[in-house]
Amino acid sequence: MFFEQAAHYIPQKKVSNDYFEKKLGLDPNWIVERTGMVERRRAGADENTNTMAVAAVENLKSKADLHDVDLIVAGSYTFYDTIVTPAHAVQKYLGIEAIPVLGLTSACSSFLNAAEVVEGYFTMGKSKKALLILSEQNSLYHNEEDQKSGHLWGDGAVAFLISRNQPKGLSLKVEEVKTAGAANVGKGTEGVMLKPAHGGIDMPHGRDVFINACQYMAKTTVEILTNNGLSMDDLTYLVPHQANNRISQNVAASLQLEESRILSNVQYLGNTGSAGSGIALSESWSKYKKGDNLVVSVFGGGYSYGAMLLKAVQD
Amino acid sequence: MFFEQAAHYIPQKKVSNDYFEKKLGLDPNWIVERTGMVERRRAGADENTNTMAVAAVENLKSKADLHDVDLIVAGSYTFYDTIVTPAHAVQKYLGIEAIPVLGLTSACSSFLNAAEVVEGYFTMGKSKKALLILSEQNSLYHNEEDQKSGHLWGDGAVAFLISRNQPKGLSLKVEEVKTAGAANVGKGTEGVMLKPAHGGIDMPHGRDVFINACQYMAKTTVEILTNNGLSMDDLTYLVPHQANNRISQNVAASLQLEESRILSNVQYLGNTGSAGSGIALSESWSKYKKGDNLVVSVFGGGYSYGAMLLKAVQD
Repeated sequence: MFFEQAAHYIPQKKVSNDYFEKKLGLDPNWIVERTGMVERRRAGADENTNTMAVAAVENLKSKADLHDVDLIVAGSYTFYDTIVTPAHAVQKYLGIEAIPVLGLTSACSSFLNAAEVVEGYFTMGKSKKALLILSEQNSLYHNEEDQKSGHLWGDGAVAFLISRNQPKGLSLKVEEVKTAGAANVGKGTEGVMLKPAHGGIDMPHGRDVFINACQYMAKTTVEILTNNGLSMDDLTYLVPHQANNRISQNVAASLQLEESRILSNVQYLGNTGSAGSGIALSESWSKYKKGDNLVVSVFGGGYSYGAMLLKAVQD
Repeated sequence: MFFEQAAHYIPQKKVSNDYFEKKLGLDPNWIVERTGMVERRRAGADENTNTMAVAAVENLKSKADLHDVDLIVAGSYTFYDTIVTPAHAVQKYLGIEAIPVLGLTSACSSFLNAAEVVEGYFTMGKSKKALLILSEQNSLYHNEEDQKSGHLWGDGAVAFLISRNQPKGLSLKVEEVKTAGAANVGKGTEGVMLKPAHGGIDMPHGRDVFINACQYMAKTTVEILTNNGLSMDDLTYLVPHQANNRISQNVAASLQLEESRILSNVQYLGNTGSAGSGIALSESWSKYKKGDNLVVSVFGGGYSYGAMLLKAVQD
């Protein structure tokens, strides 16, 4: 299957480190040192995971023909509505009838779980053109007052058009996508939690999350390359989960990868959850050249993780 | 693929119609006339979608060998935790490493979307034995004070072991499963909503939901039978979404189906969301005989719907 086109939507409102200095007395430089984050975006009063998903698809519609979409899969762990999911909101927006539509969550790994679900529908012959959407409004459930994690979160959405058959022009061919859960590892079921009825996002074991994120993202990147007859030298871009730039730098260091080969937005978007790596993939779309190899590598609460190998191809 | 074994978990606490008479002045007979409901179950203080999912899997474990499970898919729209989903909690409980694990929602249709996702993993060759779990704690998000819908909701969970290859003994072979969204139909995106940060479950357009549920469940039942060369006479049991017994009776009437052929639990469990039809399928497991044809037909908020044709087979 092929990533045919991508578009994202980022809310207007910027929240700088100064905001957290005023609010909580946090040193802006300390935030940068600890996370690499300079600012993050926040959804407006009328925005939520559904409106941001629709806005991303609206942007996608200006770049690609969406009339033959026959499957919509949306990942999120910050659902505005768990019944009318972003996938349902987008179906309503597009007005396409009687196609499978679902929301899913495996936390910050949802991008790759969604890709694997789409791959399943394509393999069954039940779909040829899918929309894969990720939309997160962390600001709906975060605890801004939390000294440790209140400043980490950002909001945003991304939408991809995925084709079973190779489209015209440049596209990203999925060579392999693989996901897994690691709930039984370390603080798997208590490292990061989001209990909507009990206080929202909570990250009481940041260090355990940090260590496992670094290890899993580096390990799965090497594994998926090796599994497809490639080495680190063949890797053009790594797109890690955008949780914290220190995690990305740690992964780059352990893989001996130059920083220029890491696609990153956590510095100005914050941790946008499952949307972060997708937005990074979308932001750099015009850079990709035929023959480029990209790996998207994610890790999230629960724990869950995964890697996807993409090759830029041209028809 | 084959439904090999099933087990469910229902919380102890019963809530009778008298409870709503005392609380809201509702006539218990009016509730029965309007919904068929006599009582419903409610999760205890220490229970939630994760513990109920684990409890259902614990019951399943006493009936089937779960050591070679290689995929866990859990449906819910009432997530206790949207990061550590019931699927992650069950992975932790079973201690099975490095297998795909995800939570999904298409509201009350989640059972069949989960079945279709499992079918995708089987078709790709990425899984041979899956756990399909549905767990709902409506009581976490309902508004008990709502005169119109506060009395409808119940809690419960169900777990199925699904095999790609035919297992020994009696099992239910999936002849076809098909899901779709109807967000653009009627009050699709506003008929039923669950906004965790904005008041929980809300059903402002009950009549539109009722009418569409009746129409879609009847229509898709006929379609899936016809599509597989069967007629209504070949149908042994219909398992409708357990929203309201008047909906089930309406579907039965329009299909000219005797009431004895409808599997139902809404009378004593209330509307247990995506778990309802799954629990009904599990409750009647010992009744199924080789050659029986079953249709599970669901409709839910969003809107979303689907049908699954099962044939009882024996090896």
